[in-house]
This record gives sequence, C-alpha cells and structure tokens, in this order.
Amino acid sequence: MSSDEDKLSGEDRLIARFFQPIATHPGALGLSDDAAFIKPPPGCDLVLKTDAIIGGVHFFADDAAQSVARKALRVNLSDLAAKGAKPLGFLLSLALPKEIGDDWLAGFAEGLRGDAVLYGCPLFGGDTDRTPGPITVSIAMFGSVPEGTMVRRAGAQAGDRVFVSGTIGDAALGLVLRKGAPWTLSDAQRQHLLSRYLLPQPRNALAEAVRAHASAAMDVSDGLAGDFAKLCRASKVAAEIEVARVPLSEAAKAVLAAEPAMLETALTGGDDFEIVCTVPAGKAASFRAAAQAAKVAVTEIGEIKAGEGARFVGAAGQALIFKRASFSHF
Amino acid sequence: MSSDEDKLSGEDRLIARFFQPIATHPGALGLSDDAAFIKPPPGCDLVLKTDAIIGGVHFFADDAAQSVARKALRVNLSDLAAKGAKPLGFLLSLALPKEIGDDWLAGFAEGLRGDAVLYGCPLFGGDTDRTPGPITVSIAMFGSVPEGTMVRRAGAQAGDRVFVSGTIGDAALGLVLRKGAPWTLSDAQRQHLLSRYLLPQPRNALAEAVRAHASAAMDVSDGLAGDFAKLCRASKVAAEIEVARVPLSEAAKAVLAAEPAMLETALTGGDDFEIVCTVPAGKAASFRAAAQAAKVAVTEIGEIKAGEGARFVGAAGQALIFKRASFSHF
Repeated sequence: MSSDEDKLSGEDRLIARFFQPIATHPGALGLSDDAAFIKPPPGCDLVLKTDAIIGGVHFFADDAAQSVARKALRVNLSDLAAKGAKPLGFLLSLALPKEIGDDWLAGFAEGLRGDAVLYGCPLFGGDTDRTPGPITVSIAMFGSVPEGTMVRRAGAQAGDRVFVSGTIGDAALGLVLRKGAPWTLSDAQRQHLLSRYLLPQPRNALAEAVRAHASAAMDVSDGLAGDFAKLCRASKVAAEIEVARVPLSEAAKAVLAAEPAMLETALTGGDDFEIVCTVPAGKAASFRAAAQAAKVAVTEIGEIKAGEGARFVGAAGQALIFKRASFSHF
Repeated sequence: MSSDEDKLSGEDRLIARFFQPIATHPGALGLSDDAAFIKPPPGCDLVLKTDAIIGGVHFFADDAAQSVARKALRVNLSDLAAKGAKPLGFLLSLALPKEIGDDWLAGFAEGLRGDAVLYGCPLFGGDTDRTPGPITVSIAMFGSVPEGTMVRRAGAQAGDRVFVSGTIGDAALGLVLRKGAPWTLSDAQRQHLLSRYLLPQPRNALAEAVRAHASAAMDVSDGLAGDFAKLCRASKVAAEIEVARVPLSEAAKAVLAAEPAMLETALTGGDDFEIVCTVPAGKAASFRAAAQAAKVAVTEIGEIKAGEGARFVGAAGQALIFKRASFSHF
C-alpha cells in the first residue's frame, strides 16, 4: 500500500485499488471526483438501463466473484444489444456484507475489468456500502444509438418474421440441474447447461444487425414465452410461434428427451439473455446475412399476425398453455 | 385493478401502478420497454453519479417510505449540484424485503414523484427485486453541464476563498439526537436537527452559481473536515479553515454550548449535503450575489494556500486534530 493510500479512508482505498483500473475513460477522472462526465457521440441518443443482481436470488452465494461481476454487467449488456445500442459505460453500486474481504473484491474487479474490455464499457463511477443483507450489485448501463433508432418492443407488424438468437432454455435447465435434477447427461452437456446459467452470453455482436433490420426486439431474460408475449402486447399484434423451431442446444434436447415436461421450463424459465426480434419479411434474408457476419446464430421461429396474443403451437398444431409464462420475483 | 393489469406479472403491475406516473419523459416510454433513451442537450456533457441507501445503514427501518425515497434521490442530486450540473433524470434499482407491500410502495412512489417534480428529474427506468436483506435503494442520476464545465474537486488555487452553503453539522447531530442524546433543546431545535438527518436539502438552486464561479467544489456528505481534505488533495493545495466561521444553525449552537465535544461530530459526522467550494478572490463578490439571487446562504470559511493539507484552526489559532476526519462504512 502506498503512503498515499495510507491517507485514504476505507472506501477510497477500495476504489483506488480495485476499481480505478476499470475506469479508463477520461471523463471518469480516475474515480477521484464525485461524478463523471461523458460527451455523448454526436447525432446519437443515449440508451439507459439498470438491473441488479442479489446473492441468493440471482446467483448462488458460492459463485465465484468473477462470475458475479460478469453476470451483473451482462444482464444489462443484453438489454443494450436487444435495443440495437452500442455500450458506452456503466455505473456500479455495490452493497457488501461484512465478511466480504479483499480476495473477493479482487476477483470481482477482475471479472468486471475483463468484461469492460471485452464489451467496450468502462466504469464511470460507483458507490460501495456495507449491508447487513446479501451481496447486491446494481449496474446502470449507458449505450448509444443513432438518434431515434432505438429498437423498441412496440413496432412489430403482421407478416414480420420472428427470430431468436442462440439457443433457448439452457440457463433455466442449468438452474434446475444445479439444484440437483437427476438427469443422465454427458459431462459436456452438464457443463454447457450450468455455464449458461452461471455466465450469460449477451448478443452485443448482433446489436447493429438488430438495429438495421428489426421492427421490434427485446432480450429474453424472463422466459421466451412471457417476454415475447410482452413484445406482442406492446406492438398490439398476435403471433404464432412453432415450438418445434425454437432452437435448443444438444444438452437441452437431451434433457427434454428424458423429461418432456421440462419444455415448459425451457420456454418460460428465464435467464436466456438471447434476443427475440421481429423482422419485416423483405428484410429477413439481409438480417440472416448480417447475423452470420456477426457470428451469432439466429433462427426463425414464427410469424407476426394481426390480432392479439402470442400462441406457442406444438408439432400437432395444438396451442401450448403454460402455467406461468414468465418468471417474476413478485 | 384494470383487466390490463390482470395480465401483468407482479413486477409489471408494480411498475404500472407506482412508477409509471413518475416516468414523464417521452424517452422513458412509460416504462413499457427494456430501456429508455434520451437526447442529451446540444453542446452539453452528461454528468453521471450513483449512490445507494440501505435500511439500517443510511436510514432507519421505521423511516417513512416518502422520506426514504427522497433521501435516495437527494443524496445524488446533491452531487450534481456541487458539480454545477442540471438534473435530467434518474434510474432506480430497488431491492425489497418480502414484507414490503403496496402501502409502503405507494408512499415511496409519492416521495419519488414529489422530488422528481421539485428538482426536474423524471424517472427513466428501473428494476425491482425481492431481497432477503434490508430495503436497498440505488439511484443512478444523470445531469448536464455545458461541455467541459463540470466543476471538479481539482482546480482550487492558492488565494481562492473557501465557501460552504447552508449550515454544517445538523444532520450528524440529528443522528446522535435520534439515538437518544439527552440534550436540552427546544422542540423547534430538536425538529430542525432530526429533519436535517431525515431529509437532505440539496443545494441544486446553487448549481449554476457554483458552475459560473467555483474553481473546485464537492458536496459535503461524509463530513466537512474529511471531504474538504479530499478537495485539497485533489487540487494539490493546502487551506486554512477558521472553525469559528463555519456556519452553524441555532440548534447546533445550542448542542455545542451544552456539549462542546460535539464540535468534532458536527465537522466530521457527515450527511450535511451542503456544498463546499473554492472561488477565486476576484469572483467572490459575484458568487455571493449569485447565491443570494438563488436564495441559498453561503459563508466564507477560509482560504486556499500553497502546500498540502487542510488545517482547521480554532479561535485561539490552534489547529484542530480530529480522531477521524471523515465518515466511512469501510
């Protein structure tokens, strides 16, 4: 510890040691001021999002500190991606129980720094507090889009194709697996499902393709069925989704083969952090090409219709009814 | 509850009922999307700040929900004021224990709305979660300043006058009083000290005067002695503060008359949410006039010197040594 650090209070010492290296933007002033400033890119709107994760609620108390940091950032990055926005940076509000020490903080800062570099989103400022409760990590994320082009939930039109990125259900099944589900899976399949719950893979590489093509979009964080129903409600449209076309990983397919009832968990369980979007039929080919160029898999799963309500249709043409379409803590 | 609300999940219902009325900016999209957008004022920098308050740490569990909401906003508004920035809006991340119901939320939303209107800072988006811990309210606040004019901690020069707004020590003494200090005070004096702890009065009315005149500024949130020492460190200057000139309320004076040792609490205890700033001598008269026009009391308490270290000097010319110059949770 330098003699300069000796003069600092506990919180200032934490900031200097762990968080300053992530505050690479000049407007963050090395976290040495009370606020940061940023000049938004000319001709752009600023896109704003906040989401928190809480120990015992959104992650397990024994998850590695690196994973906690990355999950906290990525659940917010996923929203920016779905809105077609480019990350600019973030604010961090961190509440820590007394027993959290420098080792945990070093790991947390390492995870944060890795993702700040990977996604181009430096730290602009933060706040650390002690809490008698669990670890609580609240992120406010800032991004930019050319003026007036943020992709919204509202905007889908009858005839638009419905696309989803990546694969659906892995994280929800990974959570069930972590809680002890007795499925017979290969090591690789177990690892795949567990890691998809532990560490979201937000589709920021797809953001520009979404912005250039999608009539509406949102990230899938509370289950595909419920989230897509919200998009249809906001757009005042209906939709028909063919469940057989919903992209599943090999691991998820293995689970569903053994326990078909897990289909509902896969479609409604949440934590996917994929993007569901609607694309006008005439732009679908171009969207596919842009996604391929961005190296993000996208799959067409259905079509927007006039009317109201998102129907999920099974292989025999029957509409699936879910007990609970969407995950909610309330 | 409308039939539309029937379709909503618990969190969506909360948002629609309590928080939508505060999201008056068109870019907040009525909180019906995953993110908000804002077009920053032309020629301006965006100023960013986050601060959280936690039940049992920053406020009492039995504080009124309205006060909790206002305190959460005001601790952030105070930073914007000290940086010379005009509020634009905020993001809210709210973690609530299971026992918190609609009554509390209604009060909280009412407090939030009142201050959003009073300070011109609408809600842009939010996140609500259940927590096994205490109520945790994290705010990310953004404001604007003409490009390149955010007032920093660094910038004070030898010869600058040191000003502080309002009165110092009330909140820290109010906290001691609330914990049961046996001081003999009038009802009005008790009320004054208690309310200054319960509900900060950030000096946003002074922001433009600070921006136009101050060479350096910060808000006083962790105690005047420690916070001002940080300003001097960032500015690489020394200072001499005359303790006898530090503005005190009648109530604080009554406490110090009865218990002189409380002077240290007043100067180091925190939660003042006043502004301390340095103003070049040639601008001091103009700053006083601007503050008067803004109806915010400001008091000159000392002068910046060449060197290092902020000295607080007593009536007899002796330097005061504080056990702990600044409040820290770490």
